[in-house]
Amino acid sequence: MTTKAKGSRAERELLHLFWKNSWGCIRVAGSGSVPLPVPDLLAGNGKKWYAIECKSIGSQSKFLYPEKVNEVIEFAKVFGAEPVLAMRFDHKGWFFLDPRMLEKTKSDNYNVTYNLCLEKGKKFEEMIK
Amino acid sequence: MTTKAKGSRAERELLHLFWKNSWGCIRVAGSGSVPLPVPDLLAGNGKKWYAIECKSIGSQSKFLYPEKVNEVIEFAKVFGAEPVLAMRFDHKGWFFLDPRMLEKTKSDNYNVTYNLCLEKGKKFEEMIK
Repeated sequence: MTTKAKGSRAERELLHLFWKNSWGCIRVAGSGSVPLPVPDLLAGNGKKWYAIECKSIGSQSKFLYPEKVNEVIEFAKVFGAEPVLAMRFDHKGWFFLDPRMLEKTKSDNYNVTYNLCLEKGKKFEEMIK
Repeated sequence: MTTKAKGSRAERELLHLFWKNSWGCIRVAGSGSVPLPVPDLLAGNGKKWYAIECKSIGSQSKFLYPEKVNEVIEFAKVFGAEPVLAMRFDHKGWFFLDPRMLEKTKSDNYNVTYNLCLEKGKKFEEMIK
């Protein structure tokens, strides 16, 4: 499976998780291709709104470019939502981070590890409370 | 131009109108094809959120199927947004209606006329106040 297909599958999985729990959720068209700061998913339940960037990985960690992370933070601020980084690790499931708490590496990127997610991440059940 | 291309162009026009006025706005992926009740656009400014169904027409009126209108109303309720029917008439611009105030025709559809939009519709400036 390509990285893109893996990403799309993960987005759809998370979308259906929200719907199953009575939240509304949509995939954003052109995420990653339009010249506007947009997230992958938007979810809401009438009380909380999330602007979500999704990553699905097999390994223990993932480098992220600050530009994309900042886009989600920027969009969330304008739209009126909480920015969320949704990390899916193979065989370990979903973890949700506030991208504003990420710390940059020496090379000025973000490196999101499985250990960071275990330590700081929320599980899905906490997200929909 | 096909009806679909005309619709897409109108959606993008409205999307950029929101961004130019410091609102966040996204197009929903798979609108019209996913088996979930989703709108064409979502817009928000941190205080108000709109779930928008767009129609772009050349003529004086447009028949709408209740199913699609009801989907937008249903999505808006779950997500936490105001449902909006955005009507674009060639050479006359945009009008915005609350789809919950539409009245059905004898054939159980909705018929949205230019006169109805003139009488009951809001202009874009009112929408972003």
